[in-house]
Formats: sequence, C-alpha cells, structure tokens
Amino acid sequence: MKRTLGVCYYPEHWPEEMWADDARRMVETGLSWVRIGEFAWQRMEPSRGTFDWGWLDRAVETLGSADLKIIMGTPTATPPRWLVDEMPDMLPVDADGRVRKFGSRRHYDFSHQGYRKECQRIVRLMGERYGANPHIAAWQIDNEYDCHDTALSYSDAALTGFRDWLAQRYQSTDAMNRAWGNVFWSMDYDHFDQIELPNLTVTEPNPAHVLAFRRYSSDQVVAFNKVQADELRKHTDAPLIHNYMGRVTTFDHWAVGKDLDIASWDSYPIGFLSDRIEGTPEEKQYFLRQGHPDNQAFHHDLYRAVGKGRMWVMEQQPGPVNWAPYNPAPLPGMARLWAWEAFAHGAETVCYFRWRQAPWAQEQMHAGLLRPDNENAPAQTEARQVADEIAGLANVGTADAPVALVFDYESAWAWDTQPQGADFDMFRLAFAAYRALRSLGVDIDIISPETSDLSDYNLVLAPGIIKLSEGFRSALKTYKGIALIGPRTDTKTEELSIPSPMGPNLSNTDVTAILAESIPPTDFIALENGGGFRHWFEHLDGDAAVYRKTEGGLPALMGNDHVRCLAGWPDDETFRSLLSDILKETGVETMDMPQGLRTRCTKTHRFVFNYAPESISWNGTEIPPAGVHWEEL
Amino acid sequence: MKRTLGVCYYPEHWPEEMWADDARRMVETGLSWVRIGEFAWQRMEPSRGTFDWGWLDRAVETLGSADLKIIMGTPTATPPRWLVDEMPDMLPVDADGRVRKFGSRRHYDFSHQGYRKECQRIVRLMGERYGANPHIAAWQIDNEYDCHDTALSYSDAALTGFRDWLAQRYQSTDAMNRAWGNVFWSMDYDHFDQIELPNLTVTEPNPAHVLAFRRYSSDQVVAFNKVQADELRKHTDAPLIHNYMGRVTTFDHWAVGKDLDIASWDSYPIGFLSDRIEGTPEEKQYFLRQGHPDNQAFHHDLYRAVGKGRMWVMEQQPGPVNWAPYNPAPLPGMARLWAWEAFAHGAETVCYFRWRQAPWAQEQMHAGLLRPDNENAPAQTEARQVADEIAGLANVGTADAPVALVFDYESAWAWDTQPQGADFDMFRLAFAAYRALRSLGVDIDIISPETSDLSDYNLVLAPGIIKLSEGFRSALKTYKGIALIGPRTDTKTEELSIPSPMGPNLSNTDVTAILAESIPPTDFIALENGGGFRHWFEHLDGDAAVYRKTEGGLPALMGNDHVRCLAGWPDDETFRSLLSDILKETGVETMDMPQGLRTRCTKTHRFVFNYAPESISWNGTEIPPAGVHWEEL
Amino acid sequence: MKRTLGVCYYPEHWPEEMWADDARRMVETGLSWVRIGEFAWQRMEPSRGTFDWGWLDRAVETLGSADLKIIMGTPTATPPRWLVDEMPDMLPVDADGRVRKFGSRRHYDFSHQGYRKECQRIVRLMGERYGANPHIAAWQIDNEYDCHDTALSYSDAALTGFRDWLAQRYQSTDAMNRAWGNVFWSMDYDHFDQIELPNLTVTEPNPAHVLAFRRYSSDQVVAFNKVQADELRKHTDAPLIHNYMGRVTTFDHWAVGKDLDIASWDSYPIGFLSDRIEGTPEEKQYFLRQGHPDNQAFHHDLYRAVGKGRMWVMEQQPGPVNWAPYNPAPLPGMARLWAWEAFAHGAETVCYFRWRQAPWAQEQMHAGLLRPDNENAPAQTEARQVADEIAGLANVGTADAPVALVFDYESAWAWDTQPQGADFDMFRLAFAAYRALRSLGVDIDIISPETSDLSDYNLVLAPGIIKLSEGFRSALKTYKGIALIGPRTDTKTEELSIPSPMGPNLSNTDVTAILAESIPPTDFIALENGGGFRHWFEHLDGDAAVYRKTEGGLPALMGNDHVRCLAGWPDDETFRSLLSDILKETGVETMDMPQGLRTRCTKTHRFVFNYAPESISWNGTEIPPAGVHWEEL
Repeated sequence: MKRTLGVCYYPEHWPEEMWADDARRMVETGLSWVRIGEFAWQRMEPSRGTFDWGWLDRAVETLGSADLKIIMGTPTATPPRWLVDEMPDMLPVDADGRVRKFGSRRHYDFSHQGYRKECQRIVRLMGERYGANPHIAAWQIDNEYDCHDTALSYSDAALTGFRDWLAQRYQSTDAMNRAWGNVFWSMDYDHFDQIELPNLTVTEPNPAHVLAFRRYSSDQVVAFNKVQADELRKHTDAPLIHNYMGRVTTFDHWAVGKDLDIASWDSYPIGFLSDRIEGTPEEKQYFLRQGHPDNQAFHHDLYRAVGKGRMWVMEQQPGPVNWAPYNPAPLPGMARLWAWEAFAHGAETVCYFRWRQAPWAQEQMHAGLLRPDNENAPAQTEARQVADEIAGLANVGTADAPVALVFDYESAWAWDTQPQGADFDMFRLAFAAYRALRSLGVDIDIISPETSDLSDYNLVLAPGIIKLSEGFRSALKTYKGIALIGPRTDTKTEELSIPSPMGPNLSNTDVTAILAESIPPTDFIALENGGGFRHWFEHLDGDAAVYRKTEGGLPALMGNDHVRCLAGWPDDETFRSLLSDILKETGVETMDMPQGLRTRCTKTHRFVFNYAPESISWNGTEIPPAGVHWEEL
Repeated sequence: MKRTLGVCYYPEHWPEEMWADDARRMVETGLSWVRIGEFAWQRMEPSRGTFDWGWLDRAVETLGSADLKIIMGTPTATPPRWLVDEMPDMLPVDADGRVRKFGSRRHYDFSHQGYRKECQRIVRLMGERYGANPHIAAWQIDNEYDCHDTALSYSDAALTGFRDWLAQRYQSTDAMNRAWGNVFWSMDYDHFDQIELPNLTVTEPNPAHVLAFRRYSSDQVVAFNKVQADELRKHTDAPLIHNYMGRVTTFDHWAVGKDLDIASWDSYPIGFLSDRIEGTPEEKQYFLRQGHPDNQAFHHDLYRAVGKGRMWVMEQQPGPVNWAPYNPAPLPGMARLWAWEAFAHGAETVCYFRWRQAPWAQEQMHAGLLRPDNENAPAQTEARQVADEIAGLANVGTADAPVALVFDYESAWAWDTQPQGADFDMFRLAFAAYRALRSLGVDIDIISPETSDLSDYNLVLAPGIIKLSEGFRSALKTYKGIALIGPRTDTKTEELSIPSPMGPNLSNTDVTAILAESIPPTDFIALENGGGFRHWFEHLDGDAAVYRKTEGGLPALMGNDHVRCLAGWPDDETFRSLLSDILKETGVETMDMPQGLRTRCTKTHRFVFNYAPESISWNGTEIPPAGVHWEEL
Repeated sequence: MKRTLGVCYYPEHWPEEMWADDARRMVETGLSWVRIGEFAWQRMEPSRGTFDWGWLDRAVETLGSADLKIIMGTPTATPPRWLVDEMPDMLPVDADGRVRKFGSRRHYDFSHQGYRKECQRIVRLMGERYGANPHIAAWQIDNEYDCHDTALSYSDAALTGFRDWLAQRYQSTDAMNRAWGNVFWSMDYDHFDQIELPNLTVTEPNPAHVLAFRRYSSDQVVAFNKVQADELRKHTDAPLIHNYMGRVTTFDHWAVGKDLDIASWDSYPIGFLSDRIEGTPEEKQYFLRQGHPDNQAFHHDLYRAVGKGRMWVMEQQPGPVNWAPYNPAPLPGMARLWAWEAFAHGAETVCYFRWRQAPWAQEQMHAGLLRPDNENAPAQTEARQVADEIAGLANVGTADAPVALVFDYESAWAWDTQPQGADFDMFRLAFAAYRALRSLGVDIDIISPETSDLSDYNLVLAPGIIKLSEGFRSALKTYKGIALIGPRTDTKTEELSIPSPMGPNLSNTDVTAILAESIPPTDFIALENGGGFRHWFEHLDGDAAVYRKTEGGLPALMGNDHVRCLAGWPDDETFRSLLSDILKETGVETMDMPQGLRTRCTKTHRFVFNYAPESISWNGTEIPPAGVHWEEL
C-alpha cells in the first residue's frame, strides 16, 4: 500500500473564490486527502431545521474534482448556540460542580440522551446527502474525544445515567455494597437513587465507586461514538475514523476502536513534550524543537493496534502551535521526520493540520502549511519533499515486532483512582517500558489486555495491569517466550480490591506481592549489582526463583523461565539493562541507540530518525539533526 | 501501672466465623485491648429505628471472653446514608461554598443541632445496651475530630449558630463593632443577622471576625463532644476517650479534654513526616522510614497534658499507610520503637491500627498487624516483642520534666488569621522550641496557657502566645526559674488587636515590641556572636537589660533574671545554643544528642531511641537503627 | 512649584479629643496636606437617609484651622452594610461564579447601575456640603480602582451591561460574528442575549470575546469614575484626583485620567517587590528593604503622563506593610529616598500612608508615621527631614526627557488574553525596556499610544503594542529620531486577529513578522556578536536592512535609519547594550549606572538615588545606602 499525505481544511473559513486555488495548491504540494466539515454544524444548520448545504456541496465538488479524496467530519464536537439554548442541560459540568459554558468547543455531555439524538439526526442528514458521494473516501466521527477533559462530567445527566448503569451492573444495592466493601465507614446504600457522583466528598470516596464512574464514563464515549457509527453505516461504505489524542486514557480506546475501521490520532510532538511528558528540564530543552523521540512512536504503535492494523495521523503539527505553555518552532526538517516516522510505524496517511493558518479565533497562532497571508509556510516545503519521497518508496509494509507491550485503560483508571504514590501513572509506567525497549533498537507492538495469543512474540511486557484477563492468563501457561509481569500487575480484583489469594495469581510460578511501598523522588531502592527502583516497590514472596535482589536482600525479579515478576519500577537505565539481558535470553537482537536516535523497521527497510539537535553517526552514516535515514533490509 | 498494648478491629468487616480465631491470635500477640464499633452505625441501625445489635453483642462476647478489654467507639463519624437523606443540611460546606457530599466519612456539620440529637440518640442506645457490660473497659467518642478539615464548615447551620454565638458574646452590635474596629472600611453591622461567615469576602475579612468564627467553630466541637460524654456518663463508669490527631490546631483540645478522662491520639510517624512537618528534602529522606524524631514525642507530651496525665496512643502506624503522598514501609523495628517511645512519655496503652488489612475500600493499602490474606505482617512480630518487653518493665512511671512549653490553640487561630509572614505558624514555632530542647536531651512538659503555677519548672517557654492569661502573668511575678517569652508573645488583645499599652505587658521588666518584621526565606537577621533569626523579628524597646543583640545593634533578647523576651524566631542551631545557655543558668543538665538520637526518662529509667537509619554510639552502647536502649536511673 | 508632603488620616478611628494634637504634630512634621474621608460612608450615613456630618465638619475645621490642606475622599470603595442589604446584587462575582461577600472593602460591581446612582447621591451630598469649603483643596474619587481584582466581575449586572455594550458596538451579531471569526468552532450568535461572559467555557473562549469583555470592563471603570467627577464639578473647583495602584493594567488609566485633574498613585516599594515584580531570588534579597530601583520611577513617569503633567504620590509606604507575603522594615532612609525620587520625577505632593498605625482590623500591622501608642515611628523623622530639604530646594521643575516609551492598556488586555507564551506580559515587557534605559542613566517619558507628535524625542520605544494608532503611525513617517518597534508590535487588528497584510505595517520600511515563537525559560535565541532573546522571537521578513542577526542567521533587528523592528525580547544585558548603541546614534548621552544606583534630572538638578544596601561611589561622591545625592545641572 502506498503511503499518502493529506491536510485539514476549513472551506467555511475562506471566501469561496479561494477554494479552487487552494485545491490546486494542495495537489501541487503532493497531498491526496483533505479533511473538512468537522466544526461546521452552525454553517450546515444555522437554525433548527434550516439547512445550508450549498456551500458544502460546492466545497466537496471543488476539492473532489481536483482529485483530492475527502474525509468528511461529523460536526458534533461543536453544537451550535441555538441547540444549547434548546437544551441547556446538555452542557458538561466539572468536578467542582460548575457548568462548563458555551463559547469554545466540546460543550456537550456524553451522557445526555437528547444530545445523542441530535447527533444522530445531523449525521443521518449528512449520511443521506454525502454517504454515496464518490469524493467522500472516509468519515471522521466527532473530534478528539475527551479533549479539554470532557470525558468525565458531573452533570445531572451523568448522575441519572450512572445510577441506571449501576442498577444494571449490580442488580441490587446489597450486591454493590458487598462488591465495593461499603461496610467500611458505613457507606452502604439502600437503593440506587441514593448514589451520587464521586466528586466533592469529604475525603476520598470509595475507590470502587470512582472506578465504577470511570467505567461508566468510558462506556458513554463508546456509546456516543456508536450512535454515529451505526447511523453512518446505513449510508456509506467508506471507512469510519476517529482522531484520538496523545496520552488520553479516560476512555477505552480498544472499545471505541471496535466500532470503527481506522484509528487515527493527532500528533503534536512539541506541544506534547512540554505538556504531557515527564522529563528533566535538560531533556525537555534538548528535544524542545523536535518532541520526545519515543512519544510519537508509542502512539503510532498503540493506535495501529486500536485500529486493528489500520492507523493514520489525522493531524500532524506543522509549525508552532498555540496551546502549550510555550510554543517554539520545530527544527527545520521535523515536519518531514514526523511524517516518515508515522509511515515507518504503519501509518497509511499523514494529514497536516491545517492548510492555512486562521487569522482569528482561538487557533490564530497555530501554524499551517500556508501563512495567514496565503504564502507558503516552511512546512509546505517539507510536505512536498515527503510527497516526492513516498512516491519512490511504495509498499514498504510494517514489520512484525518481536516484542509486545500490554496497554490497558481500565488499569489507568484504577491507578488514577488509587495511585498510592503521587507519581504512579499507567501511561508513565508503560511509556517507561516502551522507552527502554526503543533505546535498545527493537520494534514493539502494543497489544490489548484481552490478547490471548502471545505466540508471535519473543517477549511480552505487562506492567501495571490491574488484573490479567483470563485469555492472557491462559496464554501464559503455554507461553514459550518470556513474559515480564509487574510491577503492580494482577494485584487487584476488577472492583479494585485485593484478591484472595493475593496476586499475582500465575498458574505456573509461585510469587505473591505481599506489601507495596510507594517511593518518593528522593528515595531509591538499590539493586545488587547496580541499578534500582523508583516510584514503586513490592515485597515479593513465594517459592519461585529469585533472579535479582535488592541491596537489602529482597527479591527484585522472581519467576521462572517463561514468566517473571518485576518487584518495582526500574529507573530508565535499569529498565534498559534489565530488558537488554532478557532480550538476549529470548534471542532478540538489540542495538544501543544513542539519545535522540531511534529506529523502526518496515517489511523492506530499516528507518533511522535523528531527534537530536545535532548530527549523529549511525553505522558510518552521518545523520543530520531532524534527519531520516533508510536502508533496505 | 503496667503498660499495655491493643489493636483496632472491625468485626463487621469479617465473617463471624473468623472472630474467635482473631481474638485468640490477639491474645497470643500479647494484646490486652481491642477497639471496635466506631464506624458501624449502618450495621447497628440499617434503617431508621431498625436495629441489629446481635452481631455486636456476639463480637463483644467473643472478644471479651478471650480476655480482651474492649474500647467501644461511638459511630458518629460515619452517619449512614438514610440519615443524610433525612437531613441533607447536616452536610458540611467548604470555604468555597460547596457542599461536601456523602461517600466517605465525617460528612456532618458540628453546628447542626439535628445531627447532635441523633448522635445523642445512638449513644444513649449504645450506653443502655453496653454501658454496664464488664467487657467494655473504655469508650471512644466519635473519631478524629477535624480529620479532613471538618472543624470549619461554612454551612447555613454554622451561619445561624455563629450569629447566635456573637449575639451572646457581644450583646449588641455596637459593642461588637467597637471590639472588632469595624469603623475601619465602614464594616459596621446594625444587627446580628447581617453578619456572614468570613469566607469569600472581596479581600481578607476583619481578623477579629475570623478569630470569632474560629472560636465559635472550636466551641461547636467541644459542645458536640460534650453531648456524647454527658449521655455516656449516665450509663457507664468506664473512662471516656477521644482519639486526637497530629498537628491539628483547629479546635481547643484543652477544652475538649476537660470533658473526657483520657486523651488518646493517632500516631502515624511516616505519614506525618511528609504531610505535616516542615523540613528540608535531605532531612525527610533521612527519616523517611522512621518519622521525625521529635514529632511523636511532642504529641505524647501535649496529649499527656490534655488528658490531665492520662494518655494513650489509640492508633499506631504498623506499616505503610495509604494516605500520604508517598507511603514507604517503616524500617524494621520502628513499630516497636514507636510503642516504646509512647510508653516512655507516659502512654498507658498503645493500640496498633489495625488488626487485619482490609481488602477493599479507601484504606485497602493501609497495612495492619495481619495481611489481608490473614498471614502475619511484619508489625505483628514487633508487637509481640513489645508485649514481652513490657512484661519485664512494669511500673516505670513518668518523669517530672524540668522544662515546660506553653501551647495555645487560640494563638494558633490568631496567627492563622493574621500570620503577617507567609510561614508564621503556631505549631511550627512551638515545635521549633521543642526540637531545640529535645536535641539537648531534656524532658519537657507541654502546658496549657491557663497554667498559673510554674514553680515545678526551671525553665518555661511561652513562644507566640497571643495574650498571656492572667494566671500565667501573675505566676511570672514570683517565678524563680527563667521564663522565655516571645517572639510575638502578649502582643495582642483577645480580639486580635494591638493592646494599649503595647505588649508584652510584664509587671517586672520593661520591654515593648514596637515594630514587627516578617522575614522571607532568603533573609536572616544575624546576631552578634553568631546565629540569627528567621521568619520573624520584633524591634524591642524598653529599659530592660539586653542579653543579646543583632549585628545591627538591635536587642535580640531582653529582660531580667527571671523573665526574658526573645525578639525573633531563632533558626534551629541558634535556638539550641540559646536554650543551652539558659538551661545551664537554670541548673538543668543538658546533653548533645546526635541527629536521630533522642531520650526520655521515666521515674525509673532513661530510654534512648535511635531514629537514624544507621547505628549510633551512646555512652559506649551501640544502638542500631530503630533501636531502643534503656538503663536504670 | 514647591514640593509638599502630606499624610492619610482617619479622624473617625480616633477619639475626637486627639484630633487637634494630631493636626499640630502633622504641621510640626512639615506636612501640608491631609487626606480624609475615603472609607467613612457608614459614619457619614449610618442608615439610609440618616446623616451624621457633625464629626466630619469638626474634623475638617480642626485640621483646616491648623493650616492643613484637606484632600476629601469619596467613600464609595466601602459601601455600608445596609446599602448591600438593599441591593445584594451590587456585589461583584469572581471568575468561578462565586459572589464576593461583604466584610472587607470594594464589595461593589462597576457595572451595577443602582450602585452608581448611590455613589452619585453620596458624592452630591458631600459636594454640596464641602465643595466650597476653603479647607478642602482637593478631592479623591473612590480608592484604588481594581484593588483586589475588582475591575473584572462576572455578575448578572456585568452580563446585562456587556450585552448592551456589544449591541452598541457591533449593531448586529452578524457583524460581531465576522469580527470575531465565530465561524471557527461554530461559535456564531443569532442575537446578543445569547452571549455570555467569557468565563467557565470548556476551553479558552474566543480571544476577541475576551478582549471585548476587557474593553467593556475598563469602560465601566471610566464611567463609574466619570459619574462622580461630573457630580463633583458641579460643586467644587478643587482638583479631582484618583489614587491608582502599581502594575494595574485592567482598566485604561489614560481614559480615566482624561476626566480628572491630577493622577496620584499609591507607592509601596517593598510590598511590590515581592508581590508584583519579576526577579531572581538574589535580586529580591538585594533590594528586600528598598524596593526595586526602577519600579517607583516607572510609575511616576507613567502617572505623570496619565495626569497630563500633574502627578502625586497619594500613599507612600512608611514602614512594614501587612499585605505582602513577607513584610520586612525598610532600610533606614528609604522613606526619605522614596519621597525625593517622587519629587525628582515631578510629583507635586507625597502623602505618607498613614498618620497613626491602627490598632485593629485588617491593616493593624501596617506601619504609620506614628506607632499605635502615639509615639513617633521611624518614618516620622524621615518625613521631617524631607520637609526641611524641600524647603531649601524649591522650584526644581521636571526635566524634558529625550526618550519616550509607549505604554498601552489595550495591549496589556490583548496579551493577557493571548499570551502565546506563559510569561508574556505587557507590563513586564515595557518594564524591561524601561529598566534598560534607566540603567543607562537617561530620563524617560512614558507616553500614550495615541501620541501623534514624537518630535521632542530622540528615541521612541513601542514594544508590544497590539496595533499602532493612526496618529502614531503617521508620526513615524516623518520622524527624525529613531523609533524602536517590537517585539510583537502592530501584529494584530483591534479585534485581536491577524491583519491582512500581516504586520507590522509601516509605511517606509518593509518588515513583516511572519511567524512567532514563544520561548521557554530554558531556551535562549543567541545573537551574533553576543546577547540574545528570551520569552519571544518573531521571524521577520522583508526588504528592510538587517542591523542584527541571530546566530542562526535570522533577522534580529531590521528597519531603516528612523524605524527599526526588534524581533525578540532581549534579556536585560542585551536590551541595555542594544539601547546603548541606539542612544549613541541618536546623540543621547548615556551613563553606566551600577546596580542599585539610579538618576533623574529636574530642570535644575541631577538627583542620584542609592537603592543598594551598601555605599556606592558616584563621580567621586560616596552615596550611602538609601542615600540621595543632588547636584546642580
């Protein structure tokens, strides 16, 4: 399959007389796709039942006849003011109980049934009108679920929905009281309408209460998306897509992904570096204009799996953005590097966001491929270069990875609810494992916790998984590679309580985590022969073999030839060294990647990316800053 | 009197068939006491007027017949859901005006008269049923007043109560306006129903307004406690206890203590270290698994006085807790050391919290003497060791301390209200004085500001006391030791205004604090011959002798042979050196205690505790980390 | 004109029998002015329609007959409780939607029409009574507009007013939608009553929406002030004054100033140092007891212009204040230095705040010229010295400055709304330019952005001006000095969008800012030949000459002989060096002022002020800490 480029475009922002020229220049830039429509509800339906499809018809025709394939967005992330006037209780409510007002975007509550019906209505109308249009080659549903923390809402709609959801899940409050341990602190309920949302309690609410609300809230996102997906399926055969975000764990992307055809995501490497990635000031300065060298890769690998093999970048940062605390410009070449890295990880299409910088409103300081005055911005040239390059490198495919990393959203909710240590975070832990693997030059698949066939992988990591799934647990019994479990894996029930017997509960090795310590940043649990743990340390007990010990003589790594439990959260160097040893044991070849240099294989080529602000030599090849090198395998 | 051990137990959390075995193992562990009942309202009264006493009767019988003495807790810290449904306005309200919802504990407002009646009712029923039961050897009223910041509530109930309280205190708004200086900024009131709670004002409210609300709020805690105490007295002769917390100054413990027989407190040395004690990151890391070496001692000495000589530790940390930002495990031996230190300071009983770690709900990550899977946790062994040791060391008594430190809750409210410098805090100041004394190896009594007989003490410190009581002021006239007054002592009226003449007003020495400076962390007021002040510096004026000067030539210590005023807040080294000199003057022997080593005498023995993570040599004896050494006097 | 001293006095705070003695001591101290009345509404009108003017009549008579000139304050910053009871919706509302309650001061909403009428009523009554009184030589209207963040309120009154204001400004929502770019994110409005205040939106609101609300809010302050000014003009010929604050940019002081005769401000150098001025901990420690050496000067120069040449200091810090995080005492001599610096910058009168320290209420820890016990405080002696000195230095005048700095409130709102980098702030940028100029020993005028005649100045700086005014733009065409424009100047329309063509739009030099980067504190854009930019860097394009480049080869300074654009925000040393070069080019003599030493010329003398805590030698003269040196020109 040939890789392609695209761009996000808002015809409603510009005079109609510019559209044809825009289309022509998009094609000249080497772009194949153009996304439109996703914030234009008010322009489609200026008031209840009054429609203006004309401009959109003409935009589709203009772009399509220029040979651009269109991704049509449903505009449900921006309900118009008149709709909010009709149903003001559709607005989300924050954890402090304050209504989140109209005036920006995503001002809707996922639980609001009335709004869901409205979304179905507008999507039906769009599907009827454009579902069979040959220019519309894909659909995007809504935009960036949970952006601006909207997956969790503390509204009346959420309260009503949550009570119903609990009633369906538990059938009786007695069952729920037992499951949650409500006997503790006399928290028992007599009927479901007594239960409130778990915000503003005197001190922390029951973690099972919170986790239930997190599950409920995720289910609403899934259901909200499914309403639109089901409606669109009636009208179109084009693939359905949602554009996910980076480091968002508030809803189960695996579940949303099941109802869609392609997983896309919005990649803002420089914005994310300052906003969503831990790191020392020195590291952040080093990668200031490049982004973290593993963050994009992690999300490519994650969403490739969420998309069941089909992954896009729907929005690619082209220059400075407007929303991070500070917004420097990318190093020249990064807009090319980021696209190539996406392709190397299996992306089918990379769309730059956006075509021309808007002169007004919230994102006017967000760069595009064109400047607001219609001149080319630097990223336009880089996009053109990528377009030329992909023409010469068709059908590179995606490599089979020898290593898998389990990523689980329920676990993220569990540890958000009960971190026990202030810096325990699911994404952070998984990303630490991922970074260590990447620094060893291996390719990685990210897999769902429901995975029940591990036979393709030499090594499987399952850090911080609250409770192993039955399929995964069963697969471990006959696994021939090495599974590295922990820290904190399989130590809870699905109601976030301590199981009996205590976990992890592995059929073929005897290890139990009998005590957990969270470790402040000043402390360090040193291991014999170097390295150590930070953040988290469990006391492991049992008859299994001890592979590593702490300096204090407690087990640091226990298990058997095929399943091992890690007692703590290794620091970066220790994680790398531990995994290097295990990878050798499993026969996977590793490479010592210098800071900033990263690699990914496709079926046919090895790609090497230089995220450093300086040249790095790679097997005799000098790779400049922001450089991309590839060689045939 | 023999020291005893106990434990906190929740029979309602466990299958009834486990109770007898639990009782047996408690006795085997050497425990004499078991506290039960304090969160079980819903299990006693599942709905209005429907009671289930059977399980509690059987639990009492099972534990009692195993020879355990029972502390019965009143369950008023956890009113059941149905009660909150009946009177939703019993919920407390935070300073932002948000109702604090049901779903955890302490969801009641101290001002709510309806809830007080309900507490009296449940306590009456418990008293009638268990007041004469021979197994019930003590009662605990409620649990941890003010935990989760519940002593201050901004509810309608509080508003109504506050207005009545003001009317009773001042009789007329004119009197109140004058007392508060409401002429300033035209803040006068015409009638009491115009007065609001002092939250959410445009800028800071009148400090006299805030202080009145703090006094009112403390009075509600006292009254709330007294309702239950008075009711219980009708039914039982067993001693009444409340379990106070560490570093809580929001209500007047002296006043609550007057209505009770024993003061107990809940000692979580490692949780408090990170959460409630100032200190450098280095100090906190050094004592990470031991707790601050003076914090437990301070509270033992404080609550021994609040309990009029009778003090317990009702909850003793046994392992990692769940509620601090980070929760490491104690150094092996600390669960023993902490108990011994409590005993050395006069504790009659130390109860570990809790028997078996709960598998669910908020505290599932809080260790107990047993693990959730019913195996012994490390602290069980240490408790057993303490039980053996106390058997061999009966009747050690409590030593008479040569030094007294005044601790005053009203002053804490005053300086919270008007800190003048961001880091001025009553507890912090008193604790600085206490630390300096402890580092010199002397025993300390903490005394009430109402104390009017100082003759037992060689040295009395009264730092930061807003206004000396008449009894104390009078005692100073004939005092033969040295009283060290200040900084900031006796500089305000009881309405938190500046007295005329300006203070301190001491009858036999002429010193006036004419100007106060708060000192940012970057600054330091150096003294002649070394040392200096931080946080606070008053310009002292008057005819009294100047004992120390600043490098700038201003008085740092003034007074006479028996009463001296300290102009500032000495840093740790200066405080130690100043007190060392004064103690020598008063004939009290001092010792230079190394960091981490602390001592306390009983009538018969000197105890030495090693809080350091390494061995320390003490007069030729090597004391290991977490070691306890004792020798006869 | 002779410089004079004065003091703020509250006769209502003190027994009437003290007044005459107070007046006598004021005169003895050398004071000519006394400000009274500004918080005394409740004492003037204890209840609706019941007046007590007697005390005020007698106070005026007592003070006036002692030969003191009176500044009568209108008491509208402290409406009495009974008035709030009558119209509770006059209270302001914070951005979280919480009503800001009675109990301190400034508890009114600028938008509330009912309260405006009440203000007019009390001012009319005062005007009628005292407007012609010969002792009343000036009037102060209200007190410190925006103090405690009161210029912005999110009340219903503000909402109603804002909608009306928008309707008047835009006439149709279509026009407004186009002006704001509401097509972005479907934010269009159909009628004005749909528009809400721009708080509590899901994510940031449209910046044009916010800027409109900032303009509206500033207009309310202007209108509120004008109601009183217009009323007073009917009754008095005495000059009308408001006392502005330091670093307040929430309303347009230029606009308020147009309706008044004198601009005064309240100068608290030490409080501001910790509270409102950026700086390293080392700098703040160095100037801890002196204040920032440029902050007072900046505001003197600013308010001299706002007052159209007439400037006072209405409140001068005399000792420790009570409201900063820490409140140390000034270095001896500073109360004199601050007064002299004000005079050197053109102040007609400097009033110390306050006469005698109050013993109660919020400001009881705020020093005065007298202590609460009526003894002289240190500042009294310094005031007396200043009084003697001004007697000997009459008619020094104010020098013509060779350099002008444009300061614009609308730009401050624009960059608050859309900082793009977390530390971009209009005052900070202007103050950086000012500091650099001051460190070169030059005198500066601060000028309005509407200035259209620049011919008096050799150098004009216009940093961060959102959009140059037509008058200023036109003046540049024929300007013979050097105008230094930027960074970020003239890059937006007045609706805070990007203009077409992109700016800056200068008629005689071709420079365009095509891309903006905000720079985190860890980063630095180095220039060729040393120095560099922080915070902000624009990529400049065009045919103009390039005067300086970055190390990366991008333009850092472009333009022509008379207009130059600065691409970034120079760090202190770079700003100083850049300006030093440009000043040489323009023929203005510069001096290298040591840290802490500052100078200002009057018509007749050069004054030199030593803000350092140590002596500094100046052209052979040793100037002690807090020293003031003057020499004839």
